Amino acid sequence: MRVTLVTDFGTRDGYAGAIAGVIARLAPDAIVTDIAHDVPPHDIAHAAWVVRTACREFPAGTVHLVVVDPGVGGSRRGVVATYGGHWYVGPDNGVFAYLDRASAWDIDTAFPRGDARVSPTFHGRDIFAPAAARLARGDRPAGPHDKLHIGLPWGAREPRHGRVVHVDRFGNVISDLPATEVESRVAISGRTLPLRTTYADVAPGELVAYIGSASTVEVGVRDGRADTALAVTRGDAVMPA
Amino acid sequence: MRVTLVTDFGTRDGYAGAIAGVIARLAPDAIVTDIAHDVPPHDIAHAAWVVRTACREFPAGTVHLVVVDPGVGGSRRGVVATYGGHWYVGPDNGVFAYLDRASAWDIDTAFPRGDARVSPTFHGRDIFAPAAARLARGDRPAGPHDKLHIGLPWGAREPRHGRVVHVDRFGNVISDLPATEVESRVAISGRTLPLRTTYADVAPGELVAYIGSASTVEVGVRDGRADTALAVTRGDAVMPA
Amino acid sequence: MRVTLVTDFGTRDGYAGAIAGVIARLAPDAIVTDIAHDVPPHDIAHAAWVVRTACREFPAGTVHLVVVDPGVGGSRRGVVATYGGHWYVGPDNGVFAYLDRASAWDIDTAFPRGDARVSPTFHGRDIFAPAAARLARGDRPAGPHDKLHIGLPWGAREPRHGRVVHVDRFGNVISDLPATEVESRVAISGRTLPLRTTYADVAPGELVAYIGSASTVEVGVRDGRADTALAVTRGDAVMPA
Repeated sequence: MRVTLVTDFGTRDGYAGAIAGVIARLAPDAIVTDIAHDVPPHDIAHAAWVVRTACREFPAGTVHLVVVDPGVGGSRRGVVATYGGHWYVGPDNGVFAYLDRASAWDIDTAFPRGDARVSPTFHGRDIFAPAAARLARGDRPAGPHDKLHIGLPWGAREPRHGRVVHVDRFGNVISDLPATEVESRVAISGRTLPLRTTYADVAPGELVAYIGSASTVEVGVRDGRADTALAVTRGDAVMPA
Repeated sequence: MRVTLVTDFGTRDGYAGAIAGVIARLAPDAIVTDIAHDVPPHDIAHAAWVVRTACREFPAGTVHLVVVDPGVGGSRRGVVATYGGHWYVGPDNGVFAYLDRASAWDIDTAFPRGDARVSPTFHGRDIFAPAAARLARGDRPAGPHDKLHIGLPWGAREPRHGRVVHVDRFGNVISDLPATEVESRVAISGRTLPLRTTYADVAPGELVAYIGSASTVEVGVRDGRADTALAVTRGDAVMPA
Repeated sequence: MRVTLVTDFGTRDGYAGAIAGVIARLAPDAIVTDIAHDVPPHDIAHAAWVVRTACREFPAGTVHLVVVDPGVGGSRRGVVATYGGHWYVGPDNGVFAYLDRASAWDIDTAFPRGDARVSPTFHGRDIFAPAAARLARGDRPAGPHDKLHIGLPWGAREPRHGRVVHVDRFGNVISDLPATEVESRVAISGRTLPLRTTYADVAPGELVAYIGSASTVEVGVRDGRADTALAVTRGDAVMPA
């Protein structure tokens, strides 16, 4: 069975390594894959987009462990969730906000821990990783399930209204406006851009709108950064035009 | 079978994770290893050096998936190539420039895709990863093969003339001047440096020329950065002296 | 058998990938896990803390390959060590300083290399990785063993005296003062802070002292960075108060 990791732990402190170690110890046959460890610190909305777009590429049955958890040790709950044939483990703080029809279990009910040591600042190691290991071994959560509680900061989308939901490493500005709601032009940050196919359709340095790999509208700059060219921020409107 | 990944996707957006997911889905027995995901964005020459020096350390038969692809969706072709008993998959844009005797297949001919969905901006996920998975499963490319088309920006090397081809994380300045073409001194950026063995042969803060781990001339600064000390850039001359 | 990697190689140059390749070639059944590759360049004390806290989470028998090695090719010795049922391979330069009761073998004695090619600047690839592969295959070191030679720059700790030993990605300031030597308050950088449980116990922007995931005193800032708020540096005192 496979376990993937999405965290904001970076790759300098060994926190992600500690989690991989716990899984190796508790589920020795699990194959662990790093999806992303450089989610910006505490950036729940960033993690949510990574979960939405990367996790689904794995085989059904994969366990996705997501630890972007600024409220660790506080009142936010931990959950085990299932959606689209995959399992998800992490805090119910918005990182799973796009899995809107997921079934979710309180992690303490799903997998009672008994008297195991738990660091109040590292639930990733002491609560989430053991739960992911149990799922990887074939255990299934006990008790009643409900829905995830927490959504994204910019709320539910209305038809034909998109928002900037992610800015990637290359400066591409990614929206949640689906391809199916756009004809030939999009409006963003006071500009109207024709929809093209790919970066190569414009000259170097020019803005280009296209349907991105998540099947939503994106705006890039060929050989440049659209986030700075447009001066947009997450939550800003992206509309058909 | 093994598949390695060299990309400029970074470790924050999940793009490399999506590729690992596709391989897990299409070639479940493949072992996926990350070689480098922080190639500077769109830096083909950087990727080429990583491919030259790291891929060959893997066992024969390994499939190396290289996605540094600023021209994605444009006219650059995708290829499957074989060289030295290894397989390579990616864009024919210079990332394989050091594999100068490789045999190469157009990827569309090698592994016809039928009507699979292809994002014009993420061939890594939709074209290259599926091809790497097929190689990992033992499929071999069909149709005629030829040579790679695209070389490095600084062209072929003349005997006893080297160029700076890579600057690493530590600021070491790495050339393509082979150890076999140097006796005891090298000239770079207006200076002449004696050839030493390792950093410890000079005092902290001093420049040191040595034969690096790729068997070519390198220049470092003990406990410092040679790139800034020398003010060199890739393509600059490195000569025997 | 498992092999983990802790290095300061970053994820842009392929050095860590080359090491993974050597292990794949020499110990094909080994499972390789990246613990941390973005240890700050040449930062031995940083690596030592990662080794102390992350490696022990893996199953007994795991081989931990640690390559933070500014003195490569000089007089520092390479070692194979065993501690707590785990194996460690790397330079005896302080990276293993917290494994204070480890048994250590000179690597040249433990695993004589014969006439294998060795780059004087990349012992990670040519000496340490082959030794890790041999351990992963079940070989055990030959010859006499002794202790590790090199400790941390700030020396042994006195009872009820702690030092700042690590600053993590989030700006948390981590000490080596054990939870067992503190009652309810700690003194650091001219301030006295009450011991709390987790970040959520204070308001955003406030300093918070707590027992961290290594069971030592840490100081954080909720939704902020304690390293800048306290203006502390590694080696500074952290005391019960």
